[in-house]
Amino acid sequence: MSTTSDCSARRCSRTYHPDVRELTIQDWLDDLASRSPAPGGGAAAAMNAAVGAALVSMVCNLTIGKPKYAAHEETMRATLASAERARAAALRLADADADAFEQVMAAYRLPKDTDAERDARTETIQSALAAAADVPLRTARLAIEIIGLTEDILDGANVNVLSDVAVAASSARAALESAVMNVTVNLVAMRAGERRDALARGPADGSADSSAAASRADAVVAAVRERLNR
Amino acid sequence: MSTTSDCSARRCSRTYHPDVRELTIQDWLDDLASRSPAPGGGAAAAMNAAVGAALVSMVCNLTIGKPKYAAHEETMRATLASAERARAAALRLADADADAFEQVMAAYRLPKDTDAERDARTETIQSALAAAADVPLRTARLAIEIIGLTEDILDGANVNVLSDVAVAASSARAALESAVMNVTVNLVAMRAGERRDALARGPADGSADSSAAASRADAVVAAVRERLNR
Repeated sequence: MSTTSDCSARRCSRTYHPDVRELTIQDWLDDLASRSPAPGGGAAAAMNAAVGAALVSMVCNLTIGKPKYAAHEETMRATLASAERARAAALRLADADADAFEQVMAAYRLPKDTDAERDARTETIQSALAAAADVPLRTARLAIEIIGLTEDILDGANVNVLSDVAVAASSARAALESAVMNVTVNLVAMRAGERRDALARGPADGSADSSAAASRADAVVAAVRERLNR
Repeated sequence: MSTTSDCSARRCSRTYHPDVRELTIQDWLDDLASRSPAPGGGAAAAMNAAVGAALVSMVCNLTIGKPKYAAHEETMRATLASAERARAAALRLADADADAFEQVMAAYRLPKDTDAERDARTETIQSALAAAADVPLRTARLAIEIIGLTEDILDGANVNVLSDVAVAASSARAALESAVMNVTVNLVAMRAGERRDALARGPADGSADSSAAASRADAVVAAVRERLNR
């Protein structure tokens, strides 16, 4: 008797981490709030990124085709395509985060009775931790990309939805901050070495750090606020 | 033939703003990204608050009952109850935001052919705008409350999920910033007067402003980061 075919869809949805897109908002939030550590902060970071990307898409959708914003049409179309890709990527990362967590837990459950077993277990744990840290690292990079998209549409956005550009930037900033926090957690558990060093270099591959990107998001929010109060 | 009984569930879900909890993540994000201005930034703010509250619940759930954290048991139980209430309230605000937006749009569609019609229309628009601004104001207050919950559990949280306290604070901060932005948008459209002045006093009823609450969220994130790197 297989546990997969036997269990209810509801139970399986919790055990096997199905596609997050198919969960209802209530079920996903219940899972997030539950005693199970996954989904947790990593999935929340990815969801914040998805919300930011979706709002960028909305602003583009409500600007494209309006004669008043014709000069920005090309930017809006290109940004819409990027935002849709980013949203899909964010949802894949929410699922990847839960999967990576399962791998770490499985590694910790490996036998450790002999020296050989202990060595193999340590190596598997370290690999699983590196893979787990890679997910929020990719989420952080994606969040930085979404912050860039809010900058791209700031000037040409339909003024009726200008505030949504700020909300998108704010959500992406939370995604970035949360993702970086999750990278840190995994690094703390990892042994010193090349893999740890590579992860510790952060989300921006040295070209910019995450706090600079957070400041850029703050600048988008401030620019919107200033224009609204003008 | 009634349009409500005749339309498909999918179409009705978009037209009648059903309970957001019953939508799948994919459908909700698609609605957010679509050409329709609602759901928009107001609903996103409420969702960010719900994510923050859910993570507070998770941390409490993973701390309650563990002998190591027995000294914090009472705080965790009380905070869990508050976080669950806050999450439910956030989801109601996501729905209320879409409803309030519909009321504003309906008011703008009122006839304006005679002086009497124009006066009645103006009054209805102003009432609808005040009601619409009240929703993000309540979201902002709720976000401040959730930031307070992250402060409450910071010291006693299970160290294995300490990073999730920071992610909760970060999500609540985004909720607050986004909600305040949405209050501002509605204020800009309102005429000067008592209702506008009351809304302009902000989410904290004078006891603290929203930027102070955002700084408190930043302090929670910084405290977690410092403890993780210790």
